[in-house]
Amino acid sequence: MSDSSSPAGTVESEGPVAAERALPLLGMIAYFQLAAFSRFAADSTLAPTLAERLSMAGFARNALDRVDRVAQRIAELGGELQPTMRPFAGVLVEFDRRTEPSTWAERLLKGYVGYGVADDFAEALAEGLDPVSHSVVDAVMVDDGHAGTVVAALGAAGEVDATLTPRLALWGRRLVGESLGVVQGVLADHPEIVRLLSVALPGDEPQQRLFARLTAEHTRRMDRLGLAA
Amino acid sequence: MSDSSSPAGTVESEGPVAAERALPLLGMIAYFQLAAFSRFAADSTLAPTLAERLSMAGFARNALDRVDRVAQRIAELGGELQPTMRPFAGVLVEFDRRTEPSTWAERLLKGYVGYGVADDFAEALAEGLDPVSHSVVDAVMVDDGHAGTVVAALGAAGEVDATLTPRLALWGRRLVGESLGVVQGVLADHPEIVRLLSVALPGDEPQQRLFARLTAEHTRRMDRLGLAA
Repeated sequence: MSDSSSPAGTVESEGPVAAERALPLLGMIAYFQLAAFSRFAADSTLAPTLAERLSMAGFARNALDRVDRVAQRIAELGGELQPTMRPFAGVLVEFDRRTEPSTWAERLLKGYVGYGVADDFAEALAEGLDPVSHSVVDAVMVDDGHAGTVVAALGAAGEVDATLTPRLALWGRRLVGESLGVVQGVLADHPEIVRLLSVALPGDEPQQRLFARLTAEHTRRMDRLGLAA
Repeated sequence: MSDSSSPAGTVESEGPVAAERALPLLGMIAYFQLAAFSRFAADSTLAPTLAERLSMAGFARNALDRVDRVAQRIAELGGELQPTMRPFAGVLVEFDRRTEPSTWAERLLKGYVGYGVADDFAEALAEGLDPVSHSVVDAVMVDDGHAGTVVAALGAAGEVDATLTPRLALWGRRLVGESLGVVQGVLADHPEIVRLLSVALPGDEPQQRLFARLTAEHTRRMDRLGLAA
């Protein structure tokens, strides 16, 4: 029931086992957050009002702060930020190419849906990490007000333009499909993430259960907007 | 030699005179720094390496932190950020349209020259402010390493490609011409900035002396790159 150093079923917060499991996920999260920085900063530049421009710039800054928080944990585990995140660099390029928003509302929904799925994916995987790394991921994923801002803005826009709601519902389905495709691509290219998933969601068919969970979370997010998933 | 409240030649750090003089400049600086955030963030997205992407993202974050520092001083003077910066919103749109970089080196030089002129303009005007506002502007304008990063990167690129140096010298002249055009546009459209300039550079022909100073600073900056201004 126990090995020489730790009780069965627990993982030390430092050491080779913790590092081997945590570093790939931390690298992926750092890349997703850097991509979120770029995305929110680009959104800021295109924002229709100065207030929204400042607000989106603040969300971009928060994403970059999260990269630093993750980098700190990577360093504690003996890794380095750039080599750890590099295997994931470019994972979102194709997603971005396939989901170019044509309006400000579509742009807002893209951030809400796309990063929502990415965050849920990371949080599911984090359940397989040592407690310290897990708590770092949880802290990084705390909503900084972005979701509430998008919900309020799209709600207000939907009241002005009744045709917006069905168009956004369609756009949301497109976005979640492409986002789940990114997750599939990561699992296909990264056996170390697949191994972590089997620790995080022990039992049969972890990938199937992961996708069920990501889809359910997406439905909850769309409900909050009053949109059918 | 003195009036009822303050010694001749000094300006109280709070009160209507300080606020009337400082708010327009603080609004202009806040807008320039928000524009710098957007520019550096866009540069980050286009950076050729992950290291440069992270580095430019950090400079973008620093620019946004400066907006907050200026906003704090605006609040101390009884103003509000958005109405104070709004008169300057869009001042750089035409500049950006006319100076679209075609390479990474041109992009780096644009940040170095364009924001160099903007910073020098702000620092010259700050000499007409109350001491507290002046020190806030000085603190905001402290170089965060951006200039050194650009000088090192362009120096390294010039060693690999000898044809780069004359092309960048030409591009630098184009950039400084357009940047001085922005300054001229601000002076033409903002009598409150012209009034502040006559306090900051008392005596004859303050505008002529301002342009002489901006040109001399630009020459020094190009010298640092080994480029003829």
